Amino acid sequence: MEFSSRIIEEAVREFSQLPGVGKKTALRFVLHVLKKDQSAVQNFSNAILRLRNETCFCKSCHNISDKEECEICANSSRDASLVCVVQDIRDVMAIENTNSYKGKFHVLGGIISPMDGVGPSNLNIESLVEKVSQGNVKEVIIALNSTMEGETTAFYIFKRISNYSVEISTIARGIPVGDELEYADEITLGRSMQNRIPYTNQSIAK
Amino acid sequence: MEFSSRIIEEAVREFSQLPGVGKKTALRFVLHVLKKDQSAVQNFSNAILRLRNETCFCKSCHNISDKEECEICANSSRDASLVCVVQDIRDVMAIENTNSYKGKFHVLGGIISPMDGVGPSNLNIESLVEKVSQGNVKEVIIALNSTMEGETTAFYIFKRISNYSVEISTIARGIPVGDELEYADEITLGRSMQNRIPYTNQSIAK
Repeated sequence: MEFSSRIIEEAVREFSQLPGVGKKTALRFVLHVLKKDQSAVQNFSNAILRLRNETCFCKSCHNISDKEECEICANSSRDASLVCVVQDIRDVMAIENTNSYKGKFHVLGGIISPMDGVGPSNLNIESLVEKVSQGNVKEVIIALNSTMEGETTAFYIFKRISNYSVEISTIARGIPVGDELEYADEITLGRSMQNRIPYTNQSIAK
Repeated sequence: MEFSSRIIEEAVREFSQLPGVGKKTALRFVLHVLKKDQSAVQNFSNAILRLRNETCFCKSCHNISDKEECEICANSSRDASLVCVVQDIRDVMAIENTNSYKGKFHVLGGIISPMDGVGPSNLNIESLVEKVSQGNVKEVIIALNSTMEGETTAFYIFKRISNYSVEISTIARGIPVGDELEYADEITLGRSMQNRIPYTNQSIAK
């Protein structure tokens, strides 16, 4: 692609580094930015700069935060004896959006994936073990993706913390609410049969 | 969507203003930016800022340019008597990439679209008329999209400049090279029958 302007070429190159964005989409973004007024572009540019310069990782849960300790960790009304282990901030947000979890989080910052060169030492696993070893944690909920890498990571964490007196659980796998049995894949349906739960008055409460 | 960080929330809002980008994609972009090192983020932020502050429209063809006069207009080896009218910089780039056009351009900056509140006065049509009225232009090639708005705009331009002694042409519509007749739509095929051209030795040269 040839550009009549070096500045546009430069901006297209920058935008096309974003995940899933090719040159054509990048050019579309650039033309959109060109149409905005100066203050809006200034805000956009600042927002990106602040993203890198003014955020940090929470010292306790390693989630991305504006302060040294994130809002969730700083919130004393949340149960610190319950720790949910997740891959990244997106999973924290997904779980927070359910409004059904009142414990704390521990963000790994990725999952074990030898193909991508990510081993246990690249993740925030040591600090989780340390947190557990201090004895204040009653239960660790492992909430990782149900992929090969996710299950490997879950098993690694299980091995590392199973010697401590802490309950270890994982989120339930099964048929999504609202789904029909006939369209569920065999593995999910098989697991949801294996891990069946007692039927009570609360079973359909939500 | 709830964010644990105001800075991230702000950045997601900014990214999600880009065309075709929703909150989830914006968050993906934000997490990608967070992983880059500081100088890369600085470059990205600068590229966006410069886009608005350091580009301008070419005084002659209205294309986006780094200088007062764009490279194409400043290039004296290009034929100034041939003017190709296009919608925006993307079309300039598309035509430039063919390497088969050696004239100049005239960028309208949009097309007439009453639904979007864009009338002839919002486009660079007056300056085209002025350019043509000076008598140095031999041919105007109208290269607009083959949509209702594109054809309306083309007809408006035709009406405005047809009184001057200038040839007015439009790019050929027909079956794309490599396409099969049976899959072509009726209108395209009909037009390509109507506008058939003499078969010569050069017909399959390209």
